[in-house]
Amino acid sequence: MLSLLVTGTNGRMGQAVLTAAAAEPEVKVTSTHHTGEDIDAAMAQATCAIDFTVHGFTSQLIESALKSGTHLVIGTTGHSDEQRAEIEAAAKQIPIVYAPNFSIGVNTLFWLTRKAAAILTQDRFDIEVVEMHHRHKIDSPSGTARRLLEILNEETGTSYQDDIAHGRFGNIGPRKKSEIGMHTLRGGDVVGDHTVIFAADGERIELSHKASSRLTFASGAVKAALWLQNQPPGLYDMQDVLGLK
Amino acid sequence: MLSLLVTGTNGRMGQAVLTAAAAEPEVKVTSTHHTGEDIDAAMAQATCAIDFTVHGFTSQLIESALKSGTHLVIGTTGHSDEQRAEIEAAAKQIPIVYAPNFSIGVNTLFWLTRKAAAILTQDRFDIEVVEMHHRHKIDSPSGTARRLLEILNEETGTSYQDDIAHGRFGNIGPRKKSEIGMHTLRGGDVVGDHTVIFAADGERIELSHKASSRLTFASGAVKAALWLQNQPPGLYDMQDVLGLK
Amino acid sequence: MLSLLVTGTNGRMGQAVLTAAAAEPEVKVTSTHHTGEDIDAAMAQATCAIDFTVHGFTSQLIESALKSGTHLVIGTTGHSDEQRAEIEAAAKQIPIVYAPNFSIGVNTLFWLTRKAAAILTQDRFDIEVVEMHHRHKIDSPSGTARRLLEILNEETGTSYQDDIAHGRFGNIGPRKKSEIGMHTLRGGDVVGDHTVIFAADGERIELSHKASSRLTFASGAVKAALWLQNQPPGLYDMQDVLGLK
Amino acid sequence: MLSLLVTGTNGRMGQAVLTAAAAEPEVKVTSTHHTGEDIDAAMAQATCAIDFTVHGFTSQLIESALKSGTHLVIGTTGHSDEQRAEIEAAAKQIPIVYAPNFSIGVNTLFWLTRKAAAILTQDRFDIEVVEMHHRHKIDSPSGTARRLLEILNEETGTSYQDDIAHGRFGNIGPRKKSEIGMHTLRGGDVVGDHTVIFAADGERIELSHKASSRLTFASGAVKAALWLQNQPPGLYDMQDVLGLK
Repeated sequence: MLSLLVTGTNGRMGQAVLTAAAAEPEVKVTSTHHTGEDIDAAMAQATCAIDFTVHGFTSQLIESALKSGTHLVIGTTGHSDEQRAEIEAAAKQIPIVYAPNFSIGVNTLFWLTRKAAAILTQDRFDIEVVEMHHRHKIDSPSGTARRLLEILNEETGTSYQDDIAHGRFGNIGPRKKSEIGMHTLRGGDVVGDHTVIFAADGERIELSHKASSRLTFASGAVKAALWLQNQPPGLYDMQDVLGLK
Repeated sequence: MLSLLVTGTNGRMGQAVLTAAAAEPEVKVTSTHHTGEDIDAAMAQATCAIDFTVHGFTSQLIESALKSGTHLVIGTTGHSDEQRAEIEAAAKQIPIVYAPNFSIGVNTLFWLTRKAAAILTQDRFDIEVVEMHHRHKIDSPSGTARRLLEILNEETGTSYQDDIAHGRFGNIGPRKKSEIGMHTLRGGDVVGDHTVIFAADGERIELSHKASSRLTFASGAVKAALWLQNQPPGLYDMQDVLGLK
Repeated sequence: MLSLLVTGTNGRMGQAVLTAAAAEPEVKVTSTHHTGEDIDAAMAQATCAIDFTVHGFTSQLIESALKSGTHLVIGTTGHSDEQRAEIEAAAKQIPIVYAPNFSIGVNTLFWLTRKAAAILTQDRFDIEVVEMHHRHKIDSPSGTARRLLEILNEETGTSYQDDIAHGRFGNIGPRKKSEIGMHTLRGGDVVGDHTVIFAADGERIELSHKASSRLTFASGAVKAALWLQNQPPGLYDMQDVLGLK
Repeated sequence: MLSLLVTGTNGRMGQAVLTAAAAEPEVKVTSTHHTGEDIDAAMAQATCAIDFTVHGFTSQLIESALKSGTHLVIGTTGHSDEQRAEIEAAAKQIPIVYAPNFSIGVNTLFWLTRKAAAILTQDRFDIEVVEMHHRHKIDSPSGTARRLLEILNEETGTSYQDDIAHGRFGNIGPRKKSEIGMHTLRGGDVVGDHTVIFAADGERIELSHKASSRLTFASGAVKAALWLQNQPPGLYDMQDVLGLK
């Protein structure tokens, strides 16, 4: 039985982590923490803490975890180089999972995309990426789509700067071999769809991920906490947790 | 039994029309015509002629059809205003179907898109259009996609000039209400896929057409020829043939 | 400004109606009602009441609405013939919307499916229906899919008893012309996807609806309440509200 | 430059192989063979022979290849145990690729499906398989779908006999954990679509292959012939050719 501390339980992600933990028979939430409270007592009761609050809280989180030897799952992003160094230093004493995306499905898509690209670009497969998110999203393409493009760039010897076509319009001429099309759809309240298309003469392969709830990310974090139980101190990401390295 | 003249039977579309006609028990191809041959004898044997050669041949086609009262299905495009006037004048004496796209499916998609837009834009549905064609296609978006955008513009009070987003990239901010996203995918040997997405909070409707062969266009032309049997002289398009007006 | 009574606000659909109403500037929730409370005072404050509780509550709801002349949107299902008669009788005095599904998208899909079937079955289009719902759903196919099949039966002259193939297995032989394939997918927590496929030689048309939240149904009910403001007494459904008749 | 013998060039697959070979700059078709002709002279001119005729021809093909040391790509299926033994014996002297499906995409789908199943079934992902083929196909599900199910059975510890649901109908109750849904769509002239869906709470992964032409299979065979140039005698399949073992 894993005893868990969940921070920020008045926020949307904190709530989602509580729900995900309740669905896992081997996990028990033994303490929670809200902004402004002292965290040491809560930390001492837990084998692992999951934090999706804000990156400004990471220093305090680490300091407390080191006192009690509590494992950490860090789901916040946007850390400074100094803060990253702090995380890396702590990982010499306690096991930590630190990842930009905790969805098992998205991490699997990353992995499958790399392998598919490695196989199919030996032949003449054209690659196109399509993503769709809700109408409020302000950046394009999504961070997940950007990561997909990086993976595709690595496997096909192409460049993010020179070979990505962010939309097409006009007399574009025949498609260039090295080109990767990137298409950003926006509308409704779509949580997040991503598709990678490999198209050759006579056949197409399509790899898709469709997220329908934030619970996806919370479940991945709980899975990471369980996985940490059997790990030595070290800095891990979701590819480690899922055995995808 | 409808007796048919098929022109340009050494070309890809002429061949496709022969195949489509052979699959139709009520049709018999009684004559064919190749570039350079005299057409009058062939025309005289047929109740209807189907032409997918080049628009430069239309004058000669009409002249011959008027002699024998033969019906016409004109599948060439790119006519000058003068040539259009010629077609219209002939249509006072013989029934003619003249259309940019003979696919029953694409014409149905046009019609369904118009109706869906009329219904759904009363509410807050965001519209995105996606098309995919083979890697050799040199213009973007496709003519069919352009027609879909025109229909959507008409039904939603938006403008082709100002409201179409041909791709998105960077810090785009939240989606504008009036915006219609247009996404042009290219790859492999895809004959032609078109999808119109209507996305609101909590639900999406998607209308798709997927063409897999040129036979599609040929079958529509044969259907038009059959439909003409019972029509008075006049100028018709595929919306007429399909009863979609 | 429409003043609204929402019943069962401790339930999932009641909560969703409150959320949908809050998003609509022309609507104000002036009263709510919980099981066991007297409803007359709450009813008197409202121009319209929306009820998604249980069909056993409908008699009491109607009795109270008739006292104050309050309009009704009835979203419960499973009424007996007697209860239906009660609804019909009340509709002679007050305007009522009574419908099995309030989603604007699903009702639009019903309508588009009917029209597409009417157009395409003149030709040789084979029809297949696919639906996917969460792993907990106990009946197959879904009620929405059944309604789609009824519509397709009406337009193609086929029968629910004789012409629906609920899955295929073994040496089935070539597809029968009159057959309609029905495919029921189950998995994860999918709220509800429905697709109707029309497939001919060389082309396919696909009409899809994807629900991602119960808010969809709540928004349709609020829309119905707004629409009722300008209607004389009578019994209406969502096809009336959406102008689809 | 690889010199190639193509058999059965009056058949559809033979024609497709000629087309695929013409698109490959490192390949030259140096001889062809038709039923009834002597094959030895044609065989002697080629480094490799590709055969998609009928399995009854395999003995003669092997006998001739052994004389000149010509490599073989065998695309026929339905061999008896005796004929298989003959192929295996020959593979001790010459390199042979023998595979049920030469599409690079389908073989990649097989491989990705195995890996995705291995990753995702550690968690609670429900698996459903959907395939669509033309209206003339007489067996259900397709051979490719059956192979996908075998792979899924192997990775999830389930059984083809007990755990595959070939369609669902009626009061089926909640989905069983071990169940794999198999859905066979038929319609139009669809060459072959296959999709594997992994659905969990909050997310779905979908892996799809869409074939649009027989050229796909021909291109895979030519690729196999090129790959054989650098192989010692032995019996190989497409997983070997693609480096997927």
